[in-house]
Amino acid sequence: MKKSVTAYAPASVSNVACGFDIMGFAMEGIGDRVTVRFSEVPGVRITGVSGWGEGVALEPELNTAGPPVMALAERSGIKEGLEVEIQKGIAPGSGIGSSAASAAAAALACNELLGAGLSKRELVTYAIKGEEVASGATHADNVAPSLLGGFTLIRGYDPLDVIRLEPAVEIWYAVVHPGGGIETKSSRKLLPSLVPLRDVVTQTGNAAGLVAGLLTGDLALIGRSLQDVIVEPARAGTVAGFRETKRAALEAGALGCSISGSGPALFALAPDRHTAELVGAAMGEALERLSIPHSTYVSRIDPHGAVIIP
Amino acid sequence: MKKSVTAYAPASVSNVACGFDIMGFAMEGIGDRVTVRFSEVPGVRITGVSGWGEGVALEPELNTAGPPVMALAERSGIKEGLEVEIQKGIAPGSGIGSSAASAAAAALACNELLGAGLSKRELVTYAIKGEEVASGATHADNVAPSLLGGFTLIRGYDPLDVIRLEPAVEIWYAVVHPGGGIETKSSRKLLPSLVPLRDVVTQTGNAAGLVAGLLTGDLALIGRSLQDVIVEPARAGTVAGFRETKRAALEAGALGCSISGSGPALFALAPDRHTAELVGAAMGEALERLSIPHSTYVSRIDPHGAVIIP
Repeated sequence: MKKSVTAYAPASVSNVACGFDIMGFAMEGIGDRVTVRFSEVPGVRITGVSGWGEGVALEPELNTAGPPVMALAERSGIKEGLEVEIQKGIAPGSGIGSSAASAAAAALACNELLGAGLSKRELVTYAIKGEEVASGATHADNVAPSLLGGFTLIRGYDPLDVIRLEPAVEIWYAVVHPGGGIETKSSRKLLPSLVPLRDVVTQTGNAAGLVAGLLTGDLALIGRSLQDVIVEPARAGTVAGFRETKRAALEAGALGCSISGSGPALFALAPDRHTAELVGAAMGEALERLSIPHSTYVSRIDPHGAVIIP
Repeated sequence: MKKSVTAYAPASVSNVACGFDIMGFAMEGIGDRVTVRFSEVPGVRITGVSGWGEGVALEPELNTAGPPVMALAERSGIKEGLEVEIQKGIAPGSGIGSSAASAAAAALACNELLGAGLSKRELVTYAIKGEEVASGATHADNVAPSLLGGFTLIRGYDPLDVIRLEPAVEIWYAVVHPGGGIETKSSRKLLPSLVPLRDVVTQTGNAAGLVAGLLTGDLALIGRSLQDVIVEPARAGTVAGFRETKRAALEAGALGCSISGSGPALFALAPDRHTAELVGAAMGEALERLSIPHSTYVSRIDPHGAVIIP
């Protein structure tokens, strides 16, 4: 029996413009690692957070890695205690699924350690419990891609219905993360509680169009569908350099560009590596001109999702 | 040069539960025929409406076949007059695209007669002008499938962006039309002007799920996605026997069931002819038990859309 398991889970872009709370994709090349090990001390303890760990709570109820581990431990009825150690590769509050990645990696590692035998799809419901700590609302559009990889659709929440979309073309992303963070909880308060029916028609048309574009490999349709008339307008003001960065991305050839999750990161999609690199550079330069410190990530959609590290 | 052209355009189911104003499919086996011919009398005249013609206006501005013909005549700059004759195979106010079929057939026939050379896709913008007469709002989710056939998505209206979805499986429908009609104009007044954000998430998830289900041939996903939390609740009360008929359809094996367009027709989808026939029979029996006169249609999605009749 293993005494310790480490899992990796990638960062993710949620909402993806027109898919508020329902769409997300996993980012290759950046993620969190979580180790779960048995302990003689009863209960679940977070024993360390390294990397981008500043400000991350150590109380298991307040750390997104805690609730999934507590729920899996309870489900398994184990008597031993569990220690959780987190290596954060993703800055908290960046808008690219930092809390989801810790929750996803914790769920996968704990599942393996306890021999619980749950599938990644089943683990989504456990990882969500961590996400609730961060956002104060149940949304699975970060934890689902972080666990399953690829591009995911949450068809519904009651019951949870996670669909993995298989794009007919390879999709690349560029993400820029301006320095600073936005708390998902407070960012959700900016959202309108009521939406004009006209905007609902526009949003459903774009969400349906994005799925059609992905599944048929119609890049132009993907681009036309990457529009958000509901959430982006409400949040754009909280994202430093939003207008300039988005314009730069589109001028550099991005299929589309919008806020990643609740921001402040922005994502853009591109049809190939070369374009994605140009787009990432252009977005970075736009922020430089505004003297806004930032990090840039360019890669493909991560096809694997969370993995156990041997 | 031809002196007279006749076109046929099929009935259609719009909204398709979760796709209000954006989704529709063409119905095989039922439609309108429109003949357009040159006349020595200047201007555009509706010279006759046969079949389900009762109550259909003869003034070209008030008849859905009129505006497309007037707009195409103006575009072509012809000096001759045009006569329009309509054979209505679809009862007006039924909720299965009666006005759209007349507009679509008129647009296709007139395009051919004038040698205008527009594609069916281009004709959608002309057919819409007829639909505006009927509904008082611009919506293309009936005229698009009626012209193009198959299952169509209106990704956006500004500019009009019509996508023809190619389902990976054959889909059958059952439609029951209880006697009586509902005016689309007045039915639109029942719709909520503001929608809770929570319902927007549910609706976009279902719309995206329906497209994913169609394009990947996932029948169970199609079924789970055929839910409407916004429009159906607002209109269900205007549809005689709604609850009983829907329940009968689902119990008989329908993938899903909802109001067709603004009703009173109800549609159900099914994976094969046999199931569609059982579903259609069950829906009909439910209405019979309520002593509601009705017509039942069972067939496949029409793949051809509007056609010129030789």
